[in-house]
Order: sequence, then structure tokens, then C-alpha cells
Amino acid sequence: MMNFMANFKRNVAIAGAVLLAGLGLSIVAQSCARPRGTDIGSIARERGLTDQDIVAAVKTYQPTGKYDEYLMFASGGHSGQVLVIGIPSMRLLKVIAAFTPEPWQGYATGADEHKRLMQQARMAGHDITWGDNHHPALSETDGEYDGQFLFINDKANPRIAVIDLRDFETKQIVTSPIMGTNHGGAFVTPNTEYVIEPSQYSVPLWKDYADLDSYEEDYRGVVTFWKFDRQRGRIDPAQSFAIELPPYWHDLSDAGKGPSFGWAFLNSFNTEMATGGIEAGNPPFEAGASRNDMDYLHIINWQRAAEVAAQPGKTRTVKGQRVIPMDVAIAEGLVYLVPEPKSPHGADVTPDGSRIVVSGKLDPHVTVYSWNKIKQAIDQKQFAGTDKYGIPILDFASVIDGQLELGLGPLHTQFDDKGFAYTSLFLETKVAKWRLQPLELVEKIDVHYNVGHIAAAEGDTRSPDGKYLVSLNKWSIDRFNNVGPLLPQNFQLIDIGGERMQLLYDMPIGIGEPHYAQIIKADKLKPFEVYPEIGWDPGAMAVGRDVAVAGRERIERRGNEVHVYMTAIRSHFNPERIKVRQGDRVVIHITNIERARDATHGFGIAQYNINLSLEPGESQTVSFVADKAGVFPFYCTEFCSALHLEMTGYLLVEPR
Amino acid sequence: MMNFMANFKRNVAIAGAVLLAGLGLSIVAQSCARPRGTDIGSIARERGLTDQDIVAAVKTYQPTGKYDEYLMFASGGHSGQVLVIGIPSMRLLKVIAAFTPEPWQGYATGADEHKRLMQQARMAGHDITWGDNHHPALSETDGEYDGQFLFINDKANPRIAVIDLRDFETKQIVTSPIMGTNHGGAFVTPNTEYVIEPSQYSVPLWKDYADLDSYEEDYRGVVTFWKFDRQRGRIDPAQSFAIELPPYWHDLSDAGKGPSFGWAFLNSFNTEMATGGIEAGNPPFEAGASRNDMDYLHIINWQRAAEVAAQPGKTRTVKGQRVIPMDVAIAEGLVYLVPEPKSPHGADVTPDGSRIVVSGKLDPHVTVYSWNKIKQAIDQKQFAGTDKYGIPILDFASVIDGQLELGLGPLHTQFDDKGFAYTSLFLETKVAKWRLQPLELVEKIDVHYNVGHIAAAEGDTRSPDGKYLVSLNKWSIDRFNNVGPLLPQNFQLIDIGGERMQLLYDMPIGIGEPHYAQIIKADKLKPFEVYPEIGWDPGAMAVGRDVAVAGRERIERRGNEVHVYMTAIRSHFNPERIKVRQGDRVVIHITNIERARDATHGFGIAQYNINLSLEPGESQTVSFVADKAGVFPFYCTEFCSALHLEMTGYLLVEPR
Repeated sequence: MMNFMANFKRNVAIAGAVLLAGLGLSIVAQSCARPRGTDIGSIARERGLTDQDIVAAVKTYQPTGKYDEYLMFASGGHSGQVLVIGIPSMRLLKVIAAFTPEPWQGYATGADEHKRLMQQARMAGHDITWGDNHHPALSETDGEYDGQFLFINDKANPRIAVIDLRDFETKQIVTSPIMGTNHGGAFVTPNTEYVIEPSQYSVPLWKDYADLDSYEEDYRGVVTFWKFDRQRGRIDPAQSFAIELPPYWHDLSDAGKGPSFGWAFLNSFNTEMATGGIEAGNPPFEAGASRNDMDYLHIINWQRAAEVAAQPGKTRTVKGQRVIPMDVAIAEGLVYLVPEPKSPHGADVTPDGSRIVVSGKLDPHVTVYSWNKIKQAIDQKQFAGTDKYGIPILDFASVIDGQLELGLGPLHTQFDDKGFAYTSLFLETKVAKWRLQPLELVEKIDVHYNVGHIAAAEGDTRSPDGKYLVSLNKWSIDRFNNVGPLLPQNFQLIDIGGERMQLLYDMPIGIGEPHYAQIIKADKLKPFEVYPEIGWDPGAMAVGRDVAVAGRERIERRGNEVHVYMTAIRSHFNPERIKVRQGDRVVIHITNIERARDATHGFGIAQYNINLSLEPGESQTVSFVADKAGVFPFYCTEFCSALHLEMTGYLLVEPR
Repeated sequence: MMNFMANFKRNVAIAGAVLLAGLGLSIVAQSCARPRGTDIGSIARERGLTDQDIVAAVKTYQPTGKYDEYLMFASGGHSGQVLVIGIPSMRLLKVIAAFTPEPWQGYATGADEHKRLMQQARMAGHDITWGDNHHPALSETDGEYDGQFLFINDKANPRIAVIDLRDFETKQIVTSPIMGTNHGGAFVTPNTEYVIEPSQYSVPLWKDYADLDSYEEDYRGVVTFWKFDRQRGRIDPAQSFAIELPPYWHDLSDAGKGPSFGWAFLNSFNTEMATGGIEAGNPPFEAGASRNDMDYLHIINWQRAAEVAAQPGKTRTVKGQRVIPMDVAIAEGLVYLVPEPKSPHGADVTPDGSRIVVSGKLDPHVTVYSWNKIKQAIDQKQFAGTDKYGIPILDFASVIDGQLELGLGPLHTQFDDKGFAYTSLFLETKVAKWRLQPLELVEKIDVHYNVGHIAAAEGDTRSPDGKYLVSLNKWSIDRFNNVGPLLPQNFQLIDIGGERMQLLYDMPIGIGEPHYAQIIKADKLKPFEVYPEIGWDPGAMAVGRDVAVAGRERIERRGNEVHVYMTAIRSHFNPERIKVRQGDRVVIHITNIERARDATHGFGIAQYNINLSLEPGESQTVSFVADKAGVFPFYCTEFCSALHLEMTGYLLVEPR
């Protein structure tokens, strides 16, 4: 294609006038005149833009006040947070704090609500103040995103966070006491019956400790099905269960839908059961765990497993978690294996639920499994044998639809509304577009660089939208200004609505490393603009019981506890002076009594490591021991009005 | 101005062909034909864009791989971090962790280097894990940004962080033991001799505790001049000093330059010395601190003060900080006051150093002070009296150049290269452009909404660039998709290069509340692409002494300490197995031995709350007590290669 400058030179006389824009010049009478004023042609030349660039710019640009059509929820990787990004503008609208304290949101920086949450979130006796988020999952109804909840995993410290999309806040963190790490979560079943969390690097299951020498005997993989109680907006650990699996390293998972409803698919690597030890002359994990040409896709009947888990004597409880032992799982027909090539990363169910697409990152093909064939083989017990642990293995050739060579390093697949699939090629740094029926490679597009996952608009639902696809690139190298040795990642927006894919926009991600994202139609979300009532407790998602109320602000001493009932409104706190004695326990109940949208107030206390964010209507409690004597200002930390700097007060801690 | 659609309808026949783009169609021979294929016109119509929108889109769009002309360093507000944003693309390139732990960067999530930093950063006996950053200051040489260092204040816990722009990492945090909070820092003198930090809400200075009843006697403001040692890249607290000031609340500051070099200007509010107490029927601070029509601009001779501070007997040391008492400061001619209207926020020295522009947010004017007149009044001791504390007050009318009515709620002023000044109008939600000589209002532009500071390209230097101005809006209300009750802020990019200001772009900031920003020409920065040598210790900015070296990886037991010398390279750690006994102290020295750009490795240990980020060449040490027995995987937390998931190992903690 000719670039803009070449075109421009040839067409300057006729193009100029019609490209005129920006200064309100009428272009009616100037159909074949020269450009004047601020014209796109000269701006484009100055900026070195091509025609394609201009189209991309116009496609992604959102003028002030215009809303994006889609919202993308991207994991923040080892930031421990979730990123909310508008599409097509690729603007970062919000960071949702999940596993990492975040003072702007007042998340785990003082509020008693979050102290409780962080207490829940502890592992191995440690406060855990970060996470490594990989896979966000939007709640689904009938296989469609319903816009109500978001789940996100922490790989490093195997946990799942539950985010309520009414206020975009984390409400619950559940820990997985029987895993070392997770990876292939969070993925949900089609009505959010369960949130799926498989382990990654295996650890001993039935014992607290075992050496690597007894890896095959004592180490185990597990997959947990967390029961979600939509009414309460919480995972119910008591109704959840896990299944014992071999000590392969489980990777990604997806839930069946339509004909495959009731089943889940987990892939795995390190079926070699390598235990590393480069320092002892062993092959390092990268070699030891990549020897086999085939690993195993796990096919799990979660619907039946839930029934089995409810039966007496079918589970063992370890560290408080109900587990279906592997022998029970095999006997009850809950788990099957089928070979999958090689070091697989993606296991993606097609929108109609009829196929499962697997990418083995050391194999240039995608493999398409037929659910009908799998189901038939299971029903007819046509097994090619079992693995070492006795799990039936289906015959690879007889359950696949076919394989398609795409290129080097295929990782993960998404779908559109026209029967096409899109697969990231990590090693080739491309996205491949291909046809599901008949299997056919259609096109590849360059991305920059090292694409991991890709996410398509409504891509994990029964009815993907097509239109947009985002390439989550791991490296950016030379794509952006140098900001030091730690580089941003690069999200690239690709237009998949046309006949050919077109790269529209690069978005650097200088705030964690997103692994996966889901993209929802924005109009499915109905978040609160302000909290529904004054005195709202976001933990309970209802009006709180012991909250500060306007007109009844007060300070009450109860022994060595000082209870402060405080309101915040532009531009003052009431009370403004809190005087306590050193060693007192101070309990501040504070309500933002505003009803205007965006009228958030912060509440920070100097040098006491406390900051709250109080959205209109919100009430929080913060309690602490006034262990240090002195005078400590508190103030509104969210700019609220012209007299914001005057929204302050003093905590006076009299020495003992 | 006619909108695009109206224009389009009239000009469709001639416009279509030349707007053709995106599909490689030649447009040579189609000068007056109908549009076909993907044309800007139909895209623009579909998206509801105007001509102006298209121009704005093209002006801000950066195609893949194209670099921004400027970098903006914006405070993160109560996120405690610094945002690095490209201009004109308004892309967030990086978040620099300053006061808040940030696991993506491995900042204060395990590394011993950051444990030391966080130890320095404690206040009042508390770990402080957040900050409220307001004003970033780029280091200067001869009044120009030199691209070497960045300073940022923490208002809530009065501290200053020093960031080295070779690797965009925080190297030092100094605490201000004599302040309750700060605000008007960090601002630097023209050669970065000093970093200026004035207090905001006053607290007792010479006593640890005093009631508000003795506010006027015991409470004090202070301004600290932190001596910067450029060679060491550190503030030198021993060479720093403070000046005692009245207990007004000090707000913003700026350093003189050119003719006013050697002087600093601090404004203040609450010269009423109100102490609040709404709960006791007193006027709240917002009323009590806004009664006076005039507050005081403080004029401080820092150059002379540094000499005085070095003289024996001229300072008192309180809580380890040298302070020039107010009586000494007055006697030595270090501090003067001049009235300033009303509840001022901005005090901004013009590029040539000849004038100081003050905005009183409750006064519709900007006031322009003449440095010549101020200097003359000081030299000739022409005072209108003194304040309550004996500080000489200059006569307002005789030291101003003039006042100009701009509108409601003027806050902060920036400058361009053509003699214009730009002032944010908080209450009007506009930016005003005005001429300095003669004083004249030129134009106002709408912003959305509630603008605080504004930042212009190279705006605080002796030679601003004009071109771009960013409006740091506090509220966004209805500008973006609803993401719950906590809304993003809104940065708006304004083109100030043309005759009229033009709004180009909205950038939501959903990650803290920036207060101020500085914009530097990108080519002034020369950050490392990778660390210069393998084994680099970013704390010392030199090769570390006890670092892991390739070929000498090992595990050494020293009593109950286990020292691990580990290297990281795609795609393995060496060693991969670390076996210790419960209760051992584990010290891991780990070096990323990569030399390729962007080949960062993370190092996370499951459930031990540890994550490091190791850029190419970097070495870090992490030490911890293995207090919990069990098997804990560690792994690379930064996606590095196709075998990234295999880059893992096991920490085996044998039970005692």
C-alpha cells in the first residue's frame, strides 16, 4: 500500500480542500483547491502517519464524553490487581485492587473491612500483600457474560478473589489450602455454578511435607470447584470441593457449554513429572518438563463430581478442603485423559460447545477435539489405556476433528461471530486467523512482541461479537520511549470486523503484566453511580449497623476505647478535633453523606498509615491504637472542592 | 463550526475518494468519485466524530513503534506512586513505585534493599506503606530540566523520595521529623542545590505535644531545604536545614531564577490561625481558615539562609533536624511576607524570573508581583509593618505589577514560549490564557471537570516549549463509562501551539489522583536499556559486592543461615531446589544474567510474600526466615519465553 505522503503528493491539489478540518473552515466551495489552515494532510505528514494510521486513529479515538462500546477486564499479573480498559479507546479507566493494598481506593490501608479480608487472605501463616493474577472470569448466565461479578486468581498464593461489579470492589478472597500455586483459574461454568481453580506446580497433598524423591507418590495436582452463591455474592467454601489429580502441572482450563455442558477441560504439562535439579546435574525443568511429545488434556465431569462430593464417604477432608480422591474420581467416571501436543497452553471450548481447541506451544499446530467423539468414547469406554495413576486415556486420533498448522508457538485461541478462530503465536509474534470448518489458515498479522493470550469481544461466551481482538504482548522492546530497564507490556488492538485484520493501536501497560482479559459489552454493566443509601457498608452491600449519621456526630469514650462517629461532606469533617490519650484504642466510624456523583472523600491520618476512600454514601470503620503521642493532622485525600485543603482536622494524642 | 456529517453530506462526491484509506486502494485516478472501502468519512460518521475530533485524533495518535516527543511525570496522589505518560499520545508508559509497595516492580515486596528503604521511611514508629504524592520536581541545571533525577513529596507522611532517572527507581526516602504534613514540595532550586519542602497543617515544633489552645504559641510552620548531593544521587540530611515559620498553613512554593535566583516563594493560607472545632460550635476550618481577604506570600532568601545555617549558634536541632529559629531568620533578613489574595494556591515564577504569579482561589484575579519591586522594598526596608511574629510585611500595592481578572477559582499558572500564561480555573472548570505584558485575558477553554493544576511542556523551566498543556482535572463525572462510585480523574491534553487552544484528548486516570506534573522533552532522558554490568546493585548503582555469578551458583550453609547464590536466565533458575530446615534464615542472592533488552525475570516464592523483579544484569538479595514447613514453589513471575512456565523451582522447608 502506498503511504500517505506518496498519496498526498499526487493528490495534493484535490485532497487538500476536503481534508480541511479543525478550524471551522467551510469546505463547501473549495472542492479542488489547495489546503490551508489546520489540515489532516499536513498534520499527518508532520507525524509521519500513513493512510492506515489515520484510519486507525479515527477508529480508536474517543472524543471527550463519548463512551466506549466494550470494557476489558485484564489481569494485572504480578501487580495483583485488575485493569479496566475501554475498547476501542484503549483507555485505562480503573485499576481494581484485588490482592495488593492500594491506597487510592483505601483498599487494605486501614479500613477494618479490609483487615478482615486480608486476614482471610493469609497463607502459610503470612500476611500476603501481593498476588500474581492471571485469568479474570466474568460471571455468566446461560453461557453469556452477565456483568454481575468478576473472579480473578492469584497464581503465587493460590487464591481466588470475588469482585462485585456494582461497585468494582473486591468482596472476598478464598485461599486454596491444598495447592502450592494455581494457574488455570479463574474460569467459570456457564451459569457460574462453580469457579474452576486447578493447581499448577504440584506439592504434597495428603502430607504436609515430602521430599522431591517421592514426587510421584506424594505430590499431587488438584482442581477445586468453588461453589458460587450468587445471591450472597460470595464463594461458599463449605459447598466447594476438589478432585485429586496426578502431579502433572495443570495449566489452563475451560468449561464446556451447550452439548459439553457439565464438563470441564484442563490441560497440563510436565506429565514427565520432572523434578528439576540443574544444580545436581539433572536436566533443568525447562528440559525435563518438555521431553514428551504429548501431555494430557483432562476431561472432567464436574456436574457428576458435585453429586459424588455430596455423597457420604466419597471425599476426604484435608486442611479443611473436601477432596474427591483420585481412585474415587476414576471409579465414578469423573476424570479422563486424552493426549495433547506438546507443552500445551490454551484449552478453549468453541462458542457452540462442540469442540475444544488446544495449542501446544512446542507444536506448530492447533488440535481441534470433537466433543461428540470424546463423549462417545467415554460412553462406550473406548480407552487406549490408563496413565500411571489409572486414569483412562482416550485415543488421540479417534477423538480429534483435525489439526491445523498455524506457526511457531501457538498459545491461546479466541473466536468471533463468523466461524473464525484466532490463535496467538508466541514465537512468531503473530496472531493467526483460521476457519474452524473446514480447517483452514486464513491470515496472520504481526504483533509486537511475544504475544501471550489474546482476548476477543465477548470471546468466551456462546455468542462472540467479533469486531475487536486484543493481543496481550509480553515484550515491547523498542515500541515506546525508554523508561528504564523495566519495560511495559504492550496491548495491541486489532480490528477483526473486516475482511482482513488491521492493527489499530498500541497500549503500553506499565503497571503489571496482564496475562488474560475478558471483553464485555459495556451496556451489560450496571454499576452504582453512588451508593444506594447513605451509610452504605460495601462489605455487606447494605446499610451498615453502627454507622455515623448526619446530625448525630459524636465522640464517645468507652473505657480505653474512643468511638468517633464522623461525617464527611464538602468541605469539612465533623468532628474536626479528636483528642485521645496515648494507648487508647480509637475507632472512627465515618460516613460520606454526599449524594452527588464523584463526590468522593478520602480520610488520611498523618503518620498512622491510614487512608480510606469514601464514595458518596459509603461508611467505613477504621480502628487503631494511638500508640504514638503527638499531634497528627487528618485530611481529605481526594480533591473534592475549592476548599478541599481546608477539609482537615487534628488527632491529638496526649502523652501518658 | 459545521460538524463532520454536515460537511460530509455536502462533499460526499469529491471527498470520498481522497479520504479512501486502509485497504490499499490507490486513490490516484479517483479524484472526484464516490467513497468505497474503509474511508475515514464513514468511520467518522459511525463514531459521531467532528472535523475537530479527526484532527485531534491524528494529532495524538502514535502508530506502533513511534515515540512520544515528551514525557510527563505526574504525581499519583494517594496512590503514592509517580505516573510516566507519553505526550502527545497520553499513554501510560510506567508507574514508578515511590512510597507504596508495588509487586510488579518488586518494590518493597521482599528485596533487602527495599527493606532498608522502608525502614528509612518509617514515621512515628509506624511502617508507612502509602503516600499522598502531590508535586514532582525534575532536577534542574541552570534552570532547565536535566533529566537526571525526580523528586516527589508525600503530603500525608511528610517525606521526599528521590528517583534516579537512569532506571526510574526510587533510591531514597527522607522523612521530615518536624512536620505534621507537607504540601508545597518537592520544588527544586535552579541547579538542584536544594529540594524545598514546606509544611502544611502546622503542629507543635519545639515540643512533642501541645493542645490546640496554645496554637499560636506552640504550633509552627517550617520550610526545609534538603541539600541534594548530585554526585551521590542522594539528599544529604546532615547538610540540610529548616526555617521556623508562623503556624500558617503553607501551600505551594517555587524557586526564583535569573534575577530572583537565591530566593524562594511560599504561599500560605489559614493566616487566621483557625483551629477548627465544628463539633464544639466553632466555625469549621473551611470557614475559619477563609475569613481573611489576604493571606501571606513568604519570600525567603535560601542562599543567605544556607550561610546562616552553617554559622555556629544560629540553629537549634530538634528531632535531629537543624532549624533556624524564626527570630534568627528575621534578624538575618531571611524571610519577608507580602499579602496575597485570598486562600492562594499557586505561586509561580515566570520563566525569566522577573515576576511571581499568585492565584487566590477565592479571588477571581491573578496577582503578578514584580521581583524588582520586591527586591527594592526589601533592600530599602520599606515595610508596611510586621505580622504577629515580627516578620516584615511588604506593601501589597507597591510590589505588584498588576492584577488581572480571569474568572472563578484560579489555582495554578504555567507559561509558554510566546509570553503567555495559562491559569486553571477550578470553579469555572476552564483554563485561561492570558498575556503577561500588558496584562490581558486572551481566551478561555472548557475542561471537564474541576481542574487543579495544569502542566505545560517544559513549563517550569527558563524556556518553556509551548505546544502542549495538560489539564489535571479532579472530577470526571460523566466523561467515561461507569466503573462504579469511585471515578477516575481526567487528564486533558490541550494544544497550545496554535493561535487558539484546542482540546485534543481525554485520558482517564483510574489509578490515584495526580496533583501536579512536569513535562520534559523526551530526548533529555538517557535511561539505561539494561543495567550496565551483570551483577548490578540498583541500590548502590554499581556492581554489587556479594552477588551471584554465572558458573558459581551454589548453596552454602552458615550455621542456621542458608545462603543461595542463584542466577536467572531464559528459562531456568540455578539452583532449582532449595532445601532448608524450618527456622533457618534463608538468604538468596539472585542475579539476572541476561543482556537482552526486556529480558526481565521475576522471582516469586509461593505463600512467603516475596516477589522480586530482576531487570537484565540486576542482582538482588532477599532474606527471610523459613518459619513455615512445607513445599513452596518459586517461579519466574515475568513472562520471559515460551518455556517461562517451566522456569520454576522448589523451596523445601523440612519440619523441625
